[in-house]
Amino acid sequence: RQMYYGKGDVFAYRTYLKPLKGVKVIPESEFSGRNNIVFGVNVKVAIGGSQFLSSFIEGDNSLVVATDSMKNFIQRHLGSYDGSTIEGFLKYVAEAFLDKYPQMETVQLTGDEVPFEATNGMVGNTLTESKLVYKRSRNEYAQAGIKIERTVQGQQITEQYSKLKDLQLIKVEGNSFVGFVRDEYTTLPEDSNRPLFVYLNIGWTYTQPEDAIGDAPLSYVAAEQVKDIACSVFNETETPSIQNLIYLIGIRVLERFPQLKDVTFESQNHTWDAVVEDIPNSDGKVYTEPKPPFGFQVFTVTQEDVKIAVTSALEESN
Amino acid sequence: RQMYYGKGDVFAYRTYLKPLKGVKVIPESEFSGRNNIVFGVNVKVAIGGSQFLSSFIEGDNSLVVATDSMKNFIQRHLGSYDGSTIEGFLKYVAEAFLDKYPQMETVQLTGDEVPFEATNGMVGNTLTESKLVYKRSRNEYAQAGIKIERTVQGQQITEQYSKLKDLQLIKVEGNSFVGFVRDEYTTLPEDSNRPLFVYLNIGWTYTQPEDAIGDAPLSYVAAEQVKDIACSVFNETETPSIQNLIYLIGIRVLERFPQLKDVTFESQNHTWDAVVEDIPNSDGKVYTEPKPPFGFQVFTVTQEDVKIAVTSALEESN
Amino acid sequence: RQMYYGKGDVFAYRTYLKPLKGVKVIPESEFSGRNNIVFGVNVKVAIGGSQFLSSFIEGDNSLVVATDSMKNFIQRHLGSYDGSTIEGFLKYVAEAFLDKYPQMETVQLTGDEVPFEATNGMVGNTLTESKLVYKRSRNEYAQAGIKIERTVQGQQITEQYSKLKDLQLIKVEGNSFVGFVRDEYTTLPEDSNRPLFVYLNIGWTYTQPEDAIGDAPLSYVAAEQVKDIACSVFNETETPSIQNLIYLIGIRVLERFPQLKDVTFESQNHTWDAVVEDIPNSDGKVYTEPKPPFGFQVFTVTQEDVKIAVTSALEESN
Amino acid sequence: RQMYYGKGDVFAYRTYLKPLKGVKVIPESEFSGRNNIVFGVNVKVAIGGSQFLSSFIEGDNSLVVATDSMKNFIQRHLGSYDGSTIEGFLKYVAEAFLDKYPQMETVQLTGDEVPFEATNGMVGNTLTESKLVYKRSRNEYAQAGIKIERTVQGQQITEQYSKLKDLQLIKVEGNSFVGFVRDEYTTLPEDSNRPLFVYLNIGWTYTQPEDAIGDAPLSYVAAEQVKDIACSVFNETETPSIQNLIYLIGIRVLERFPQLKDVTFESQNHTWDAVVEDIPNSDGKVYTEPKPPFGFQVFTVTQEDVKIAVTSALEESN
Repeated sequence: RQMYYGKGDVFAYRTYLKPLKGVKVIPESEFSGRNNIVFGVNVKVAIGGSQFLSSFIEGDNSLVVATDSMKNFIQRHLGSYDGSTIEGFLKYVAEAFLDKYPQMETVQLTGDEVPFEATNGMVGNTLTESKLVYKRSRNEYAQAGIKIERTVQGQQITEQYSKLKDLQLIKVEGNSFVGFVRDEYTTLPEDSNRPLFVYLNIGWTYTQPEDAIGDAPLSYVAAEQVKDIACSVFNETETPSIQNLIYLIGIRVLERFPQLKDVTFESQNHTWDAVVEDIPNSDGKVYTEPKPPFGFQVFTVTQEDVKIAVTSALEESN
Repeated sequence: RQMYYGKGDVFAYRTYLKPLKGVKVIPESEFSGRNNIVFGVNVKVAIGGSQFLSSFIEGDNSLVVATDSMKNFIQRHLGSYDGSTIEGFLKYVAEAFLDKYPQMETVQLTGDEVPFEATNGMVGNTLTESKLVYKRSRNEYAQAGIKIERTVQGQQITEQYSKLKDLQLIKVEGNSFVGFVRDEYTTLPEDSNRPLFVYLNIGWTYTQPEDAIGDAPLSYVAAEQVKDIACSVFNETETPSIQNLIYLIGIRVLERFPQLKDVTFESQNHTWDAVVEDIPNSDGKVYTEPKPPFGFQVFTVTQEDVKIAVTSALEESN
Repeated sequence: RQMYYGKGDVFAYRTYLKPLKGVKVIPESEFSGRNNIVFGVNVKVAIGGSQFLSSFIEGDNSLVVATDSMKNFIQRHLGSYDGSTIEGFLKYVAEAFLDKYPQMETVQLTGDEVPFEATNGMVGNTLTESKLVYKRSRNEYAQAGIKIERTVQGQQITEQYSKLKDLQLIKVEGNSFVGFVRDEYTTLPEDSNRPLFVYLNIGWTYTQPEDAIGDAPLSYVAAEQVKDIACSVFNETETPSIQNLIYLIGIRVLERFPQLKDVTFESQNHTWDAVVEDIPNSDGKVYTEPKPPFGFQVFTVTQEDVKIAVTSALEESN
Repeated sequence: RQMYYGKGDVFAYRTYLKPLKGVKVIPESEFSGRNNIVFGVNVKVAIGGSQFLSSFIEGDNSLVVATDSMKNFIQRHLGSYDGSTIEGFLKYVAEAFLDKYPQMETVQLTGDEVPFEATNGMVGNTLTESKLVYKRSRNEYAQAGIKIERTVQGQQITEQYSKLKDLQLIKVEGNSFVGFVRDEYTTLPEDSNRPLFVYLNIGWTYTQPEDAIGDAPLSYVAAEQVKDIACSVFNETETPSIQNLIYLIGIRVLERFPQLKDVTFESQNHTWDAVVEDIPNSDGKVYTEPKPPFGFQVFTVTQEDVKIAVTSALEESN
């Protein structure tokens, strides 16, 4: 039986949260930290506990923590949270729920980043990065999830993941899709040079969930870095398919961050349809949006795959 | 490792599909069948198979059925499908995929109904139901899901569910929410008469998945009937909470349809905030939309719960 | 110079508003009134006045009515409003704003209906229409707009319109589109029997704006009636184009409601693409969603057109 | 009578369009041009002409250019367009329509930019800007509009505007809102330091519409530059209201670009609600999303305002 309840769309914004500093810098990314002057997160909490059965079957609310109170609980705890990451904040809140309410046995939290980008402003005659004005971005964003359960050994993290969501990348050249099955259901022509347009959700888990919290910045993997790796590998690769592209991105992420256990991709294909293929005196072409159906792939790359890739690369080089 | 790929947003509309007739009629609903003159479904297919690993790791497309071909496959099979339900159509397509492509080991399909409502038209001087003009509805809709796996014993249904999605109901009186935990995080006042506004997703599974297909209409449970039960139970009940309301709806569904195994609810609370509580010479009040956070519940009601409910009802009446 | 300010998304729900009774009943519609047990409206107010210039240029807020106060003003006035239509409510609020705040010279209000549909419930063993439980509809909805200006002669309605928005209708047979211009830019084949799928916004204005208010129900035109006329005319007509269809609907609306001045259509074409044209032993076909581009038409039908249509019909019959 | 028809959502993407170079560089912005390697636009075309009346009234399609052909017309012309701006492309297409189809008397086109941002990629050991991989942005975007009419003097531009849409900016400190009207409808407290969160649409017109086309880059005003001015002025200003902020931004834009006639703002207030005002050892606060109603302002700043502002500034300095 599924039985839990909670609160969704709990938006919480904190100004002047402790900055994130001291992360590992990687070649593919200029990312080195976040000033956290505006920290935005949309939290969803789900609470499980066998004692809640009576609230469903008998309408007995005596053990029911109102979801409105959960909302207050989450927002106020963003005031007292002294870390610098969404992952850390979710762990802080989940533990506090279990400490406060004995009838709660499991607490599952997800947090969607509300991202803000820096802007510039004139100070005298100089254009500098503003410490006050930020632009809300509706582009890719980070997500984190955690599940903590009350066990006889105390509170245990039973699930933790971090994720980059809704990154939309197009590569204008250098992508082919050929050699696939052709039968009476095939109308798609082979294409040696399509403008591959992918939507990417990239999730990763840590071998040690504690590393996700950010208290040890060198072990922390930032969504911005994963994004930059995806862009770079896409740029470097003559892609034969999205399947192969996401495998290569996964390998690079796991190589840069050996503390990660695996990387899981949910990718979609939104490549345009060609309209004008030949334009005099121009390498350009004209495309348009396709019909609604989109291809998708779900694939997990593991550290085991990295070992195999390294071994076969060595064999090839010998 | 997660590894599958497929196609989303495969819209398929079929005119003059075989009508659904002969379903069991229940007291709470005037539903007796569907003429299926316009049958709309948005299909998502996910294909698994160990042999697809090379398409990810080596970019080898030789076993890859293009997702564009999957789209053609699904849409054309709606032309040859001779049943009358989304559940039946998904099963028909899943089996056909496994028959056609040996490299496919699992086929998972979901189908979202695109609902159409009847309209009226003048024929001479009489206003009658039109057989030609339909109104597309963006309200609640049915969803079905199926997973079929290739096993040594042949193809096996390993998952099947049907669901009613996004039903939005408000009851203007007769709902209370009192007696819940009060502490320093509580700002919600007790309320003996709130205008409870719920969003409901209601899913159900069959003890025998074959019953879901609709080939034996008397065993088939229509989403329209589940909707009507939800409306009626809500109308009949002085609700102490959403938790208790969804339990009572679940019990009624399982009583009307003993062939079902369980009913799972995903409910949300979107109750309005009061603005004007007292209006001279009127029972009316003025409300407005609350802030974004919403409470939610997930709960499964089983046939076991029905037995307990029937037993305790008997004890009370004795 | 454009200069005004105001508040959008002011949701206001009123229970037990005065019912709308006594409207003119027309052949194409079973509509006879609304019980208004749940009356929902999303209001937008825009306030103009030359004295507000200083608030922009000098940042002087002394004459500025906070838009938050405007929101309270609108919601509270729904408590004291004793009419039964959105049109009437908007007039009531606009007049009250001008009465209350001399610095306001023009008040423009639009109101989008939040529609609720009746549901049924068991009372004993009988299934009857519930007076308590309503289903929120996300389908077509009514909209009204009014602009009142302070003139030397007092407050004057300078704009008033009513509208039905986002009605989506498909007719599976009896629609052709042939005989249009063919040149090097034409790829659309002629079609003698397409499943015409139209989105319709239908707006109407009254010769006497006071008729819109609903205080004289026999002069009031309900959005539900306009919807039913559209469905019926679509059903009755072998359509050669959307252009002709909307003209015929407009004529019928103006014939049924001579108190209207004109009817303006904003229509869109969302007709599906064919996939399977021939299905053995079935009149059915399979279609799918087209690419994003959609055709649209904007056209006003006037009482003058009705006179011409009546005259030419007489000539033909002679 | 309103009478026109056309096509919406005509997406057209062009790779390797002529780059935009040689624009005027301003202090508030690092913008100097666009490489136009990926140029995306969503076009809407509306065609007017008295001869189309028969297509509505008699269903005569003989003069009707199918909207599907209009879509082909627009997309193919993006292949032959040799300019570098949306404004220029719309003019090029509008003129071509009037040249091709005599029955067309007015052509109105709007074009929404589909923006793409640069990404980085490793080339050897160096991280450089990629010429192949671009990130689609769903943040602020440019829009342009043009109307060209057939007159006895030939084709005339009767309307032209450019616009920056949906810029969302928050300033965490330095915004007050005090001194506004207080009465029985006021519940909003005065606020000397709110985290002002504004959504901005900023439109501008040229004294000479030809300047908008971009063929003379020094006269062209880029949406990116208007965005950077808005960010900078917001950063520089202790704002007493949104009204004053948009006036100051408008003045700065018109000062930087004297070739513009006016700037029109559509602003919205989406400022958060405070939850935790005092956090020990931190300047931070916790906020959350408000209820749905939002304040908005519409205001045009003209070159006349600039003259007055300059004059009063001189008077003050004397």
